[in-house]
Amino acid sequence: MKHAPELLYLLHGDAEELNEAVSQMRAEDIAVALRDLPPDASAKLMTALPFNLAVKVFDEPELSHSRCEIVSRMDETKAGNLIDAMSADQQADLFREIPQTERDRLLTRLSEPTRASLKKLLEYAPETAAGIMTTEFLSVPASSTVAETLDLIGRVAKEKETVYAIYVLDPATHSLLHVVALRELISASREARIIEVGSRRDPVTVVPGTDREDVARLVSRYNLLAVPVVDDAKRVIGIVTVDDIIDTLVKEQTEDVQRFGGMEALDAPYMRIGMGGMIKKRAGWLCALFVSEMLTATAMQHFNTEIAKATVLAMFIPLVMSSGGNSGSQATSLIIRALALREVKVSDWWRIAMRELPTGLILGAILGVIGYTRIILWQHIHFYDYGVHYQLVALTIGTALLGIVAFGSLAGSMLPFLLKRVGVDPASASAPFVATLVDVTGLVIYFSVAYVILRGTLL
Amino acid sequence: MKHAPELLYLLHGDAEELNEAVSQMRAEDIAVALRDLPPDASAKLMTALPFNLAVKVFDEPELSHSRCEIVSRMDETKAGNLIDAMSADQQADLFREIPQTERDRLLTRLSEPTRASLKKLLEYAPETAAGIMTTEFLSVPASSTVAETLDLIGRVAKEKETVYAIYVLDPATHSLLHVVALRELISASREARIIEVGSRRDPVTVVPGTDREDVARLVSRYNLLAVPVVDDAKRVIGIVTVDDIIDTLVKEQTEDVQRFGGMEALDAPYMRIGMGGMIKKRAGWLCALFVSEMLTATAMQHFNTEIAKATVLAMFIPLVMSSGGNSGSQATSLIIRALALREVKVSDWWRIAMRELPTGLILGAILGVIGYTRIILWQHIHFYDYGVHYQLVALTIGTALLGIVAFGSLAGSMLPFLLKRVGVDPASASAPFVATLVDVTGLVIYFSVAYVILRGTLL
Repeated sequence: MKHAPELLYLLHGDAEELNEAVSQMRAEDIAVALRDLPPDASAKLMTALPFNLAVKVFDEPELSHSRCEIVSRMDETKAGNLIDAMSADQQADLFREIPQTERDRLLTRLSEPTRASLKKLLEYAPETAAGIMTTEFLSVPASSTVAETLDLIGRVAKEKETVYAIYVLDPATHSLLHVVALRELISASREARIIEVGSRRDPVTVVPGTDREDVARLVSRYNLLAVPVVDDAKRVIGIVTVDDIIDTLVKEQTEDVQRFGGMEALDAPYMRIGMGGMIKKRAGWLCALFVSEMLTATAMQHFNTEIAKATVLAMFIPLVMSSGGNSGSQATSLIIRALALREVKVSDWWRIAMRELPTGLILGAILGVIGYTRIILWQHIHFYDYGVHYQLVALTIGTALLGIVAFGSLAGSMLPFLLKRVGVDPASASAPFVATLVDVTGLVIYFSVAYVILRGTLL
Repeated sequence: MKHAPELLYLLHGDAEELNEAVSQMRAEDIAVALRDLPPDASAKLMTALPFNLAVKVFDEPELSHSRCEIVSRMDETKAGNLIDAMSADQQADLFREIPQTERDRLLTRLSEPTRASLKKLLEYAPETAAGIMTTEFLSVPASSTVAETLDLIGRVAKEKETVYAIYVLDPATHSLLHVVALRELISASREARIIEVGSRRDPVTVVPGTDREDVARLVSRYNLLAVPVVDDAKRVIGIVTVDDIIDTLVKEQTEDVQRFGGMEALDAPYMRIGMGGMIKKRAGWLCALFVSEMLTATAMQHFNTEIAKATVLAMFIPLVMSSGGNSGSQATSLIIRALALREVKVSDWWRIAMRELPTGLILGAILGVIGYTRIILWQHIHFYDYGVHYQLVALTIGTALLGIVAFGSLAGSMLPFLLKRVGVDPASASAPFVATLVDVTGLVIYFSVAYVILRGTLL
């Protein structure tokens, strides 16, 4: 595989040598190589590549974060031709990244049909079915025969995004009647009418506004290679292919991990984001969390007297707090995923609570016993002197852990339901919220337990 | 769509009514319905279903966590026939769940070819290419023509997992020479030799031990519908289809989220895991984290005098700790994903460190200023009295935040590299480790800053 530096070198040699080199490469690999080059060099290379290969390269989602910069550095007519030949969904992807001011200028460079289809696609939100669909699909009227359809496929296979699903339309209304898989077509009798091939069940469809994650779930469940997006009159306005689904799943996975880490999801690879953009994406959440964690300082104000009397209590604050946070984070991650995969519904919240409470109590009891033992042990082997009331201190820590871990598990499992109920994506906010909630409550539980157990002795 | 309770009801009615009801359903939906039934009822229903439909239902990955229980409740001969007719990758999946003691008994109920292929598949680890591949693919000798190949596909389309990729083999050695997509085949001249159809580049292949995530990356990058798994002699031993890739991506996403939440990944849906199993999966990590967080208590022992002198310091421990944890968690989630997507390599660690350090310092400065202002403000509007040295206290908190957030970002970004370097999956361990590391170090930074700034006044 040729790499970016070599391509750069060839760019300064003669055209033939470059053509020879790239003819051995896959469009996907060229796209990855271009991604690592400075935009100026990428633009030159795109201009130098044979046109058909350039189109394929530009169609690769791998290049999606660099395309905008490349286009702005290319000759406008050439850029227009290139974009005209791209697949519809990638055109829309590219235009979404182009600043509004340049958009209109570039639109005039496109052919009329491209412009029209693009304007339509750009109206849809990028995280919906219509936002990731392509408009190049294969449809035939219900009156066609298998032989006619196969002929048609043979002629147009190269232009369509996929030919593995054939959409059979009502000749009059153009509404979707039936979907035939190419594998069914190929094993059918050549004289049969296309409408009679394959299963007679209603085809699986989605509407333009279907969330792309729900589309992914359908494709995954029914093992589809493409799913049609239909309007109110059941007319097919586009299809979402399995490639788009895989890209969607990878993007969602990245967003999930980043949001779970407590930040706004990045929309480009780590290394391609400038320091300013990175700080903006991170500072927002970090500040929000910081401000809500200030509640811990407020809570602590009320326990100042307790700490002054028994500084030994301060010693275990970090341990007790982190245990609550960890148990909350476990429960949250479980429920976020179970909700995303539709393993549990919002209405199941009570069943989950009735599972998480005993689970949390048992987990809390385990940690409580470990914590209790640790203090008694340290005292007995003279690692540290917790004072004459060390047994009561140990009992305080153990009991507080029981309560905090149980509360953490319960709160951590219930918050995703609450967020979903009020219409917020649980994946995007649960983890950091749980941390704050559990931290503040954990402190209150800890000092309340201490007050009950240590009153009359240390407090 | 019929749901589980209705199916259960029909089971007690007459067979015809059941057949009528299920004939309207997709196999995938029956599988989902069965998943929610008690295993006894599912086993009865599987026996009552028309055989071909039962096979399709049993082939659904949706049912994978229930299959083992269903099989053990079915008549052994019937179960054997059913398994015999399943696709090879699902057979292997099922047998991996069956306890060793029952495995051998059930194996004797299978036909000889199934038994042989199954034994081979079971030798591979489930998270490798060979562990998720199927052995039913379509191959033709290089001497075939397009017309002959199309004929063959028409005859065998129903038996093969996919017919969208045709593997062209050397007639003598059976090694893989070429891969043709069905769409290329269909638009090719019928007399052409298959070896001449489509691109002449080396086909994309994987070896049996390739990690399933790497297979997913290849399929995603090259937009493949299937990728062949080849042995040392380049013979195709199976294929991984895009369906398997989607299932893999969904599984990996679940594991990532659960591990990021600080627990062992569950291998079944939340609701299907018993309380005991759930506690086992969660208690391990929770205890490990608890024991390492005990270091915070040890660290605090050394600062006991400081707290006794200035209890005001204890008040900000939770705030300061959580800020370090949050910034570490951000950086970790970013790097885990960037590593998983191969956006950065292990050798990039230095470049990342040089990015994260200034980023962390700026983020820390932002939080530091907010923290400083909060204390000064509270004092001036008489919300709380931090004592005569409140300005020094505010300066301590501000400076400590700067140091802790910078350290958190740096440590959070470097730990995934370290784990990867020593051969541990960063996704599985980074987040919890970072929390502990940053908590302990955060306390040390906090009290060191306090010592420098408050010496001679409060300390």
